[in-house]
Amino acid sequence: MDRESSPFDHLLWKETARTLEARCRIFDVYRVQKASGKGTTGSFYLLDAPEWVTVVPVIQNGDGTRSFVMVRQYRHGSGEVTLEFPAGVVEKGEEPEAAGRRELKEETGYEAAEARLLGRVNPNPAFMNNRTHVFLFSGLTKTALQCFDEHEDIEVELVPEDTAVAQMGTGEFGNGIMMIALGFYLRDRKGKD
Amino acid sequence: MDRESSPFDHLLWKETARTLEARCRIFDVYRVQKASGKGTTGSFYLLDAPEWVTVVPVIQNGDGTRSFVMVRQYRHGSGEVTLEFPAGVVEKGEEPEAAGRRELKEETGYEAAEARLLGRVNPNPAFMNNRTHVFLFSGLTKTALQCFDEHEDIEVELVPEDTAVAQMGTGEFGNGIMMIALGFYLRDRKGKD
Repeated sequence: MDRESSPFDHLLWKETARTLEARCRIFDVYRVQKASGKGTTGSFYLLDAPEWVTVVPVIQNGDGTRSFVMVRQYRHGSGEVTLEFPAGVVEKGEEPEAAGRRELKEETGYEAAEARLLGRVNPNPAFMNNRTHVFLFSGLTKTALQCFDEHEDIEVELVPEDTAVAQMGTGEFGNGIMMIALGFYLRDRKGKD
Repeated sequence: MDRESSPFDHLLWKETARTLEARCRIFDVYRVQKASGKGTTGSFYLLDAPEWVTVVPVIQNGDGTRSFVMVRQYRHGSGEVTLEFPAGVVEKGEEPEAAGRRELKEETGYEAAEARLLGRVNPNPAFMNNRTHVFLFSGLTKTALQCFDEHEDIEVELVPEDTAVAQMGTGEFGNGIMMIALGFYLRDRKGKD
């Protein structure tokens, strides 16, 4: 991979080999052998995953407040029901914004007139190799019925922004990927209210 | 597991079986069979991981601004060098706050007079079963040398808060788990500046 050199290249490790440990449909697990510039060697586990997208769909209310279009669904990792922003996987060949529009429409039936990138990060660079892209979607109109992926059973709810911000990290508001998106949203709103 | 009933229990699935797919040191990968209340069945991949902790170590500067104590290190998932908040795993029997104090000391040599929980979320409830706890640490003093885990090679840097907030999602500021912590921090600061 071509990359620009940086003053911190002395911290880089080089991959020397990798073995597939498990194919898990939404990611593959590899064991990767690496060597540091200092000559240290080790093996590390890697989740090879596609890019992800999360959208923050905002409705401007008549009274000057804002609401989010959120989705309630069962999450198989936590074993709990969460209330969170629409999100999903960026399909091969798809642009992240287009993936966000598709997920919003499939999960909620809404479409957005405007989209703006709020930020993107690796969800966990310790063992993931992908990024989650966060878009602000506004100018929303409900145009279609929901259209679920297999095993999806999703309820749509309009949540006041103040409620979502205050409740984040409690009860149904427990999704860290949503917290990444909400953090970028709070940065974007800083000084505007 | 005992849990209170909720109006959304119709969305819950029940586990019927699980198989260990891979032991990966920092997590175990399981394939879990589940059935929904509607009778749908499916298999889902789960990363069984310990609790995590991230600390936001804040220094109040003489000019009224604030800086974060951050760490620069190579990340084996992304293959990149990141600049991020100190973080790590909560050891068995350890309280999350104590784990945060231990990680701060090991990674940076700093200790904190005050600690306050900013929030906690599941880093990815789609396939993780743990939580990441975020603490605000203040009243910092440098008391000790760094003390690294095996394979850790960490550089400490004081980063102005404004820089970290503005740069988040670009260059070295690419860690989503740090973004979770920064989001909770921005919520906490809302209306205070």
